[in-house]
Amino acid sequence: MSYAILTLETLPAYIRSKAAELPAWFDSSATLEINELSDGNLNAVYRVSSNTASLIVKQGLPYLRVAGEAWPLSAARAGFEALALEWQHRLARGSVPEPYLFDQSMCVNIVEDLRGYQVARQPMIDRLEIAGLGSSIGGFLAQTLFGTSDFGLAAGDKKRLQAQFCNTELCEITEDLIFTEPFEAVLLDGKPNRNHFDAGIKPALETMQSNAALRLEVARLKHRFMTAGQALLHGDLHTGSIMVSDSGDLRVIDPEFAFYGPMGFDVGVFLANLYLNAIAQRGHAPNELESRAYQTYLLGEARACWDAFSSGFAAQMLTANSVSWRNAGFTDAILLEVLRDACGFAGCEMIRRSVGFAHVLDVDSIADAQTRVTVLERNLHLGSRLISQRQRIETYNDLETIIVEALT
Amino acid sequence: MSYAILTLETLPAYIRSKAAELPAWFDSSATLEINELSDGNLNAVYRVSSNTASLIVKQGLPYLRVAGEAWPLSAARAGFEALALEWQHRLARGSVPEPYLFDQSMCVNIVEDLRGYQVARQPMIDRLEIAGLGSSIGGFLAQTLFGTSDFGLAAGDKKRLQAQFCNTELCEITEDLIFTEPFEAVLLDGKPNRNHFDAGIKPALETMQSNAALRLEVARLKHRFMTAGQALLHGDLHTGSIMVSDSGDLRVIDPEFAFYGPMGFDVGVFLANLYLNAIAQRGHAPNELESRAYQTYLLGEARACWDAFSSGFAAQMLTANSVSWRNAGFTDAILLEVLRDACGFAGCEMIRRSVGFAHVLDVDSIADAQTRVTVLERNLHLGSRLISQRQRIETYNDLETIIVEALT
Repeated sequence: MSYAILTLETLPAYIRSKAAELPAWFDSSATLEINELSDGNLNAVYRVSSNTASLIVKQGLPYLRVAGEAWPLSAARAGFEALALEWQHRLARGSVPEPYLFDQSMCVNIVEDLRGYQVARQPMIDRLEIAGLGSSIGGFLAQTLFGTSDFGLAAGDKKRLQAQFCNTELCEITEDLIFTEPFEAVLLDGKPNRNHFDAGIKPALETMQSNAALRLEVARLKHRFMTAGQALLHGDLHTGSIMVSDSGDLRVIDPEFAFYGPMGFDVGVFLANLYLNAIAQRGHAPNELESRAYQTYLLGEARACWDAFSSGFAAQMLTANSVSWRNAGFTDAILLEVLRDACGFAGCEMIRRSVGFAHVLDVDSIADAQTRVTVLERNLHLGSRLISQRQRIETYNDLETIIVEALT
Repeated sequence: MSYAILTLETLPAYIRSKAAELPAWFDSSATLEINELSDGNLNAVYRVSSNTASLIVKQGLPYLRVAGEAWPLSAARAGFEALALEWQHRLARGSVPEPYLFDQSMCVNIVEDLRGYQVARQPMIDRLEIAGLGSSIGGFLAQTLFGTSDFGLAAGDKKRLQAQFCNTELCEITEDLIFTEPFEAVLLDGKPNRNHFDAGIKPALETMQSNAALRLEVARLKHRFMTAGQALLHGDLHTGSIMVSDSGDLRVIDPEFAFYGPMGFDVGVFLANLYLNAIAQRGHAPNELESRAYQTYLLGEARACWDAFSSGFAAQMLTANSVSWRNAGFTDAILLEVLRDACGFAGCEMIRRSVGFAHVLDVDSIADAQTRVTVLERNLHLGSRLISQRQRIETYNDLETIIVEALT
C-alpha cells in the first residue's frame, strides 16, 4: 500500500486490513470506534476501540502538524520511532507502551493504548506528586542508555544500530531550536528565526544573546550533541513525553527524535523540565508554602533520577562487554561526564523553552504577566549558569546547590 | 561478476573487461605486464602496465593478508577505501592517488600508479629529510577533516555520510590493537591477546600495564575513538601510508580504515610516527650529531604539521556553515580539543607500535639489542606521559616540550 493520510473514515478499513498482524485479543471485525487524540506537534494519533479493547494508531504526517503544510517533514520518522520503541521495550519493558505493529509504507505505529494514563505535564503544573517519577525515569535511562552504548552492545552491533538512526530531520529541529535560534537575535545562514517570547523578557534575552562566553559554550554543546554518538537517546524526554496512571505507573512515549547522541542529553532535558516546573510554581501555587513544598518534591525527584540512573548504570558497567570498561574509576569518569553534559543540556532546554519556538505550559500558563516575566528571567539566568558552570560540577550535590540558589 | 581472488593469470582479462571505464590513455588491448606489489597487511596489490602507462589494482582479500586465512576479514573494506578516497580526492586533490574505478563485486580499486614514489618510512629511517612533509600532511588534514565535519558539511549530509562509514571490522582492529591489547597482560572476554615484544621490555611493560590511572585514561580515549564522530578520518595515517617522490611530492594512501571519529586521531597517529622515528634514531644514526640533526628536523616537521593543520582549519572555520561555529573563540576551543586528543592518541600509537601486534620498522630494525630495549622503554615512557598529561596541554609548545624531554 502506498502512503495516504488516514482519516476517521478510512481508519476502520485500514485496521481490518492489518487484523492478522494485531494482537489476537483485538477483534477488528466488530464495530470500531475511532477517536482522534492528536495533540503533539508532529503526528496524527487515534484511539481505535473494539468492544472492550483498544489500540493507539499514530501516523507520521508529511509536515509538522502544528505548523501545517508550510513545514514539510518526512514521514520517515515513524520508522525511527518504531525502531527506538522496539529497543526501549526490549531493554526497559514496562517503561514504554508495548509496540504491536509498524507499517513502513503508511508510516503508522500501532501501540498499546495507555487508557487511564495522562500526560504528566499538566498534573505537575497542578502540583500532583507522582510517586517514583525520578527513580522510574532514572531507571529507564540507565537501561536504555547502557543497553545501546559501546558498553552494553558489541562494537559492531552498536555501529550498525547507530547507522540505522540517521534521523537527520528531527536532529536538525533540535539543533536549530535548542542550540541555535534562542541564542541569536536574527538568524543568519538564510534561515528564519522562530523564537517568540514575552516582550518583558527582551532586555534579559538581549543580555544573554550578547554573552560571548555563553555563546561559545552553547556552540560546544551543540557540537557535542551532533558528534558524541554514545547511546540511543529518546531525544525529547520532557514531561509531555511521560504518561502516568492513577496507580502511579509511568510510561515514556514518543521516541521519534531518537538518535545516537550524548547520554547527558536525555538526562538533562528531563531534569530541566523539573526545574522549569519548580521555578514556575510561584505563578501557580496559591501561596509560597505550597510552592516551596512542591519545589522540595521536585528537587527530590531530580535527585532520585540521577541516583537511579547513576546506580543502575554503574551496576551494569560491572558486566560491560570489554575489560577496558570494567573499572570503577572509568565508570565514575563516564558518569561525571554525563552529569556535566546533563547540566549544560538542561541549561539549553530551560532557555529554549522560555524564548524559542516551543514553550512549556508550566510557564506560558502563568496568568500574572509580571510573575511570568520574573519566571522567564529566572529561567534564562539559571539556564545560563548551568551552561557556564557545568565543568565545575563534581557531584549531583553541586548541581542541586545551583538549583536551590535559583529557587530562593 | 561475483567475487573471485585475482591472480597474475586472471588479471589481464579482468582489466580488459573494464576497459570502457578506465582512463582513455590506458590501452588495455596491448600486452599487459603484471607485477605484484603487495606489502601491506590487508590486500593484494598489482601494477598493471601497458606500453608506457600503468595503473594500480588493489583487491580486498577475505582475510588479513599477513595472517592468512586464519584471520577472516570482509572484503567490504574496499568499498570504504573507495568512498574515502573519493572524498579525499575531492577535498584535497593532489594529496592522494587519483581514483579511476571501483568494482564493488570484486572489491577492487584501480587508482593512479605513483611510479617513482616510495613509502616514506624507510627513507625516514635512513634520515632523508622530506621537505614539506609536516605542512603537506597538516594541510591534507585541514582539508579532509574540516570538509567532512559538521562545520563543512550540512548537518543532514554529514549524518548520511557518517552512516555510510559503518566500518565495523577495521574499527574493531584499531579498538583491539591500539586501545585494548597493549594494556593487558592476558586478555579476557574470550579473545586472544596478540601482543608480541622484546623480552627486555617486559619489566617496563608490566609496570605500565599495572598503572591504574593510565589504564583509565586509555579507556577514555578508546571510548572517545568509538563515539566522537567528528569527521571522516583516514584512520591509519602512519608514515607507511605516505608516499614521496624524488621531487618531494607527497601522497596519502590506503584509507581503508576510514570512519567518522575524533579529528585528533589522525593528527596524533601521524605525530606519533615522527616521534617513534626520532626516538629510534639512536639505533640508526652513525653518531649522536646525526641523530640529533634528524630529531631536530622531525620536531620541525611535527610542529609544521600542527601549524598547517590548525591554520588551515581555522581559515575554513571563517566560512563554516552555521553562525554557531563562526566564532574565533569556538575555533580555538575545538583546536585545543583536537590537540589534546592528538596527544593522547599519539601516546597510544607509540605504545602499541612497541609492544602490540603491529610494530614499526623504525624500532624493530635497530640492530643492537640493548639500544632497541632502551628505545622501547622510551616509547612506553613517552607514550604514557602523552596519555596522562594531555589535559594539561594548552599549546603545541607544551606538547613539544614533552617530546624534547623524552629525546634528551
